[in-house]
Amino acid sequence: MRTCWLNGAFLPEDQAHVSIFDRGVLFGDGVYEVAAVVNGRLLDADRHLARLERSQRELQLPAPRSSAEWLPIMQELATVNGIDEGLVYLQVTRGAAERDFAFPSAPTPTAFAFARPKRLTDDPNASGIRVHVVPDLRWQRCDIKSVAMLAQVLAKQAARQAGAFEAMMHEDGLVTEGGSSNLWIVRDGVAYTRPLSNDILAGITRDVVLELAHGAGIPVRERAFTVEQACAADECFLSSATSFVLPITRIDDAIVGGGVPGPVTQRLRDGYVARARSLTQPA
Amino acid sequence: MRTCWLNGAFLPEDQAHVSIFDRGVLFGDGVYEVAAVVNGRLLDADRHLARLERSQRELQLPAPRSSAEWLPIMQELATVNGIDEGLVYLQVTRGAAERDFAFPSAPTPTAFAFARPKRLTDDPNASGIRVHVVPDLRWQRCDIKSVAMLAQVLAKQAARQAGAFEAMMHEDGLVTEGGSSNLWIVRDGVAYTRPLSNDILAGITRDVVLELAHGAGIPVRERAFTVEQACAADECFLSSATSFVLPITRIDDAIVGGGVPGPVTQRLRDGYVARARSLTQPA
Repeated sequence: MRTCWLNGAFLPEDQAHVSIFDRGVLFGDGVYEVAAVVNGRLLDADRHLARLERSQRELQLPAPRSSAEWLPIMQELATVNGIDEGLVYLQVTRGAAERDFAFPSAPTPTAFAFARPKRLTDDPNASGIRVHVVPDLRWQRCDIKSVAMLAQVLAKQAARQAGAFEAMMHEDGLVTEGGSSNLWIVRDGVAYTRPLSNDILAGITRDVVLELAHGAGIPVRERAFTVEQACAADECFLSSATSFVLPITRIDDAIVGGGVPGPVTQRLRDGYVARARSLTQPA
Repeated sequence: MRTCWLNGAFLPEDQAHVSIFDRGVLFGDGVYEVAAVVNGRLLDADRHLARLERSQRELQLPAPRSSAEWLPIMQELATVNGIDEGLVYLQVTRGAAERDFAFPSAPTPTAFAFARPKRLTDDPNASGIRVHVVPDLRWQRCDIKSVAMLAQVLAKQAARQAGAFEAMMHEDGLVTEGGSSNLWIVRDGVAYTRPLSNDILAGITRDVVLELAHGAGIPVRERAFTVEQACAADECFLSSATSFVLPITRIDDAIVGGGVPGPVTQRLRDGYVARARSLTQPA
């Protein structure tokens, strides 16, 4: 059985419980992060934890621990669970209190974390995935990585029912995000991704891909694109912490770039994997 | 200590816990209802349970119990907790499963309920409350009574910080809803409230008020109104299952209807209280 972490203690997953009065349960009043594990070590956890701090600030959610305190807990979870490649999930909620929408006066946040294995550097989806187009029904603060994600749940369930790996969400035809990823297209050698705003999450992987593209001399424009432009693009891909860079070779029934991963996507995925290996190399 | 109900058992509130892997905790993937208790008896619980069934259907969430099965559980909760006036809260989530946005293949829903006292027929807020105007940041399926309510949490927290009892949410100036209530204005003897759509919840109390207005010969138009029209209205009020009908006498710094409850609001509140007492009269 897995070992989880809850409010200061490592414990078996079947003992990891929170009150029904937890505001995470009653309101979705919580935030989270997911960091990849490669070579048994956390990848870019400092960046994820900086974003967690921002999410907490935006929601006036008292931080139960600092980033420096979270790091060894998350690493320990990966280690005790024997994760070579996988992820560590960390969630903070505003804690348990008598039910009232407004914040409790002196909340004690709830925090928990768990780890699990996942193939990352040799992800079988790296040969190309399909996305399913759905309207973006989310709220207007998608920049906050909160757990109130019913819109994403429905989008990704619709994707699965359509035989797709991920959703391509759009607002009036303009692509916003995947259900849990940022989306990109490549046209004439230039990569495009939607600019940051309250409409999308500022992906950590998105940032890293921007850096990798810059380093590789691949021009990038942070500019919104339409579903039609994505279907007609030379390449299309997604970025996320636990999928790295994945080629999108089908958008519903439209075949993108001949149905095989394109060269820019491949270079970025290879660069991402190489960077991940290098940053987590055993000493 | 309160007695709660969780997955088939009555138990003390400090033993009412759910897994950290519950989809209510991880995604806000759950729905709920709140029914008033008057004279120790549930009010309009059948209507609330019909709406719960609809919410479950809309989310393809398997119903753990029928409305007929919920009724005695909710009533028992009110009784064992000695609630004369108050509320019973009931929540259903998609249950615990390995974390994945899309639905688990064979979910076992989690269900829990609790009760608490609240002054209803002699609510001290019946002398008039203040609302605070905020943009409506919610998602596009507000017709589903889900627990993914971070936008409402932030709206009602902003209201409290502004010294108001409730939020008045608007979209481009058009009033949508309160943080947990439907909103109404009265002008020249006619009551106005926003028509039903995916933008608002179909309030059970809203429905009852429509019926009461009809019975009392008060004309009603289901038509959206602006914040400005609300400020300039003769009367303004909210409706909700646990506030019944409450006069809104201030919208931020604007005083509505001379700052005192208006005659139409008063008639509707009196009618609502009378109906509640009559429906729950001890045998």
